[in-house]
Amino acid sequence: MGPHPAVAAIRLAVRRTLADLAAEAGVPVAAPVRAPQSRPAAAALVPAGATTLIGNARRHPSGLPRTPAAPGSPLVLVAVSGGADSMALATATAFEAPKLGLRVGAVTVDHGLQAGSAERAEQVAVRLRELGLDPVEAVPVRVGRDGGPENAARDARYAALDAAADRHGALAVLLGHTRDDQAETVLLGLARGSGARSLAGMPAQKGRYRRPLLELDRAATRQACSAQSIPVWDDPHNSDPAYTRARVRHEVLPVLEKHLGGGVVEALARTARLFRDDADALDQWAALAERDLRTVEGSLDVGRLAELPPAVRRRVLRRAALRAGCPAGDLFARHLESVDLLVTGWRGQGPLHLPGGVEATRRCGTLVFRRQSD
Amino acid sequence: MGPHPAVAAIRLAVRRTLADLAAEAGVPVAAPVRAPQSRPAAAALVPAGATTLIGNARRHPSGLPRTPAAPGSPLVLVAVSGGADSMALATATAFEAPKLGLRVGAVTVDHGLQAGSAERAEQVAVRLRELGLDPVEAVPVRVGRDGGPENAARDARYAALDAAADRHGALAVLLGHTRDDQAETVLLGLARGSGARSLAGMPAQKGRYRRPLLELDRAATRQACSAQSIPVWDDPHNSDPAYTRARVRHEVLPVLEKHLGGGVVEALARTARLFRDDADALDQWAALAERDLRTVEGSLDVGRLAELPPAVRRRVLRRAALRAGCPAGDLFARHLESVDLLVTGWRGQGPLHLPGGVEATRRCGTLVFRRQSD
Repeated sequence: MGPHPAVAAIRLAVRRTLADLAAEAGVPVAAPVRAPQSRPAAAALVPAGATTLIGNARRHPSGLPRTPAAPGSPLVLVAVSGGADSMALATATAFEAPKLGLRVGAVTVDHGLQAGSAERAEQVAVRLRELGLDPVEAVPVRVGRDGGPENAARDARYAALDAAADRHGALAVLLGHTRDDQAETVLLGLARGSGARSLAGMPAQKGRYRRPLLELDRAATRQACSAQSIPVWDDPHNSDPAYTRARVRHEVLPVLEKHLGGGVVEALARTARLFRDDADALDQWAALAERDLRTVEGSLDVGRLAELPPAVRRRVLRRAALRAGCPAGDLFARHLESVDLLVTGWRGQGPLHLPGGVEATRRCGTLVFRRQSD
Repeated sequence: MGPHPAVAAIRLAVRRTLADLAAEAGVPVAAPVRAPQSRPAAAALVPAGATTLIGNARRHPSGLPRTPAAPGSPLVLVAVSGGADSMALATATAFEAPKLGLRVGAVTVDHGLQAGSAERAEQVAVRLRELGLDPVEAVPVRVGRDGGPENAARDARYAALDAAADRHGALAVLLGHTRDDQAETVLLGLARGSGARSLAGMPAQKGRYRRPLLELDRAATRQACSAQSIPVWDDPHNSDPAYTRARVRHEVLPVLEKHLGGGVVEALARTARLFRDDADALDQWAALAERDLRTVEGSLDVGRLAELPPAVRRRVLRRAALRAGCPAGDLFARHLESVDLLVTGWRGQGPLHLPGGVEATRRCGTLVFRRQSD
């Protein structure tokens, strides 16, 4: 008996991510071990060096022995809420990382938003230590109010993860987001109506963060936990209709699946990949164009702006506004439309007032972005 | 009393489209007539020349007189189903076109899919003639089966509209699609997961077709018909759950509106505009890149393909496959992903078989697309 197919799929996804990380970090990787066909399938999954340690090593919940990487090996941290996604990720990472010469630790963030959250975070930490992760930290955070409860909790969480990664000198932080989370993110972006970047969803890799499970279904993580008898914790916020994402998950996506003929989660995730590529290419074009159009005084040549395709021009204008000091979160499509009219609908308009006290003015055939306090 | 706000909004949208058309056709446009403030508002809307004809001219349903443009003036056709969208469009066009020196006719297509459809089409034609449109045709079509019932009906409808436009030498054909139709189209494209072009929805202008109402809500067309006592016909197909679009309209969009905080139709329509621009810009880049990469033998240089951003490379590969004879409707993202691996994941793969009998082969550092029968 090999592992449950869900367990195998998650391990494979994690193995790919870890192999990339190990290669980037220059960790020497042992050749993959293939056992002779006559050995039982489960044993074939045991890494070569591990067989000598059976009996000493604590047992992995799958029944397989676990060989921790040597102290001082590069460390990968897993961000764990205690839900099925992140518990399945942590378990698979604990299984795969030693084979690649990597240590695995975990951080569980206590948002302090529910009674008993500190105890729950400590329980999750105990389970993670039992899985062999080390170091494991339960980190309390203070959630502010900026940008609504979901954004504020996310900001606090990532700040805690960044601090933990810095503290331990971790190579990377693994996040348990699945294809379902991706589909939800795309729908939330769609509702904002703000274009390719907001439909591009979450990247598989950004800075120190990696999302190994982004191509897998949430159901697979539940199956994997169940197959390995890993207790999971269901965050009541995930089904609390006060949260937009919870409504998307429980109300919107099922209706889309029902009426659009199934496969919607996959289609949304594919859409996200395509739009990420589109947005990257257009950003690249805009960066080149902006460099090209900038006059020696730092303003933008209106005549050459007008020759750009609208999608590129809008991105150039956005870059210029951000460079002048507009806060990215406050700069909306309607602002850029007004700025665009200074180029394509010029009838002598006065200066435009953009967020962050930035003024956009057309002057002598150029666009000037300037912070009013300058 | 001016016209009902919905009537005014639709007339304004139609006026803009017609003014563009008249300008393109070189029709001399009279200066807009502004009546003195002391005259009643309704009279102020009467075009200058029309006042001399009161009593002779048939009356427009708004109570205002109508002056048909001279015979031989350029003709605009309106595609009319008899529903609120297209009846509001036809009525507004009949009101606005004469002021711009344009004649207005209409085509109503009888798809022959429901009992009594021929009689209904004839009733619609009679109403349109009463509104002063001329010529008005009810055209029966045979709906095939290719691509499902909705696609087959659409293909037959556009073929009939094209034929009518050719027959009458029409400047343009106006379609009554509203912002709601646009949102539905975007959602249908999203469910296909096929990228920016499929999320770009319907263009306001394509070839001879114009969609003046694309920024207006469907509700406005109902209000306009009601305010002008124009009888409308509700196509039972529009609420038949056998049709995907009907389910999107009646099941999916209301759920999105409810759970994503309202404004979803507007956000989807805005998304469509942004993606249309993105897709146009990326297509432009791909066209330039393809020209640049093509070797003298007509194959593509692999080394330089690999340097392109993935979004552009995918589009170059698509162009090359279409040029070699792949049918556009059969060429999917997964085909292009395989072709892309010939560039970015080369490990000696053999030729790839694409739809339409096209083969893609990597040979001597180039990609060759060739139809097998060639």
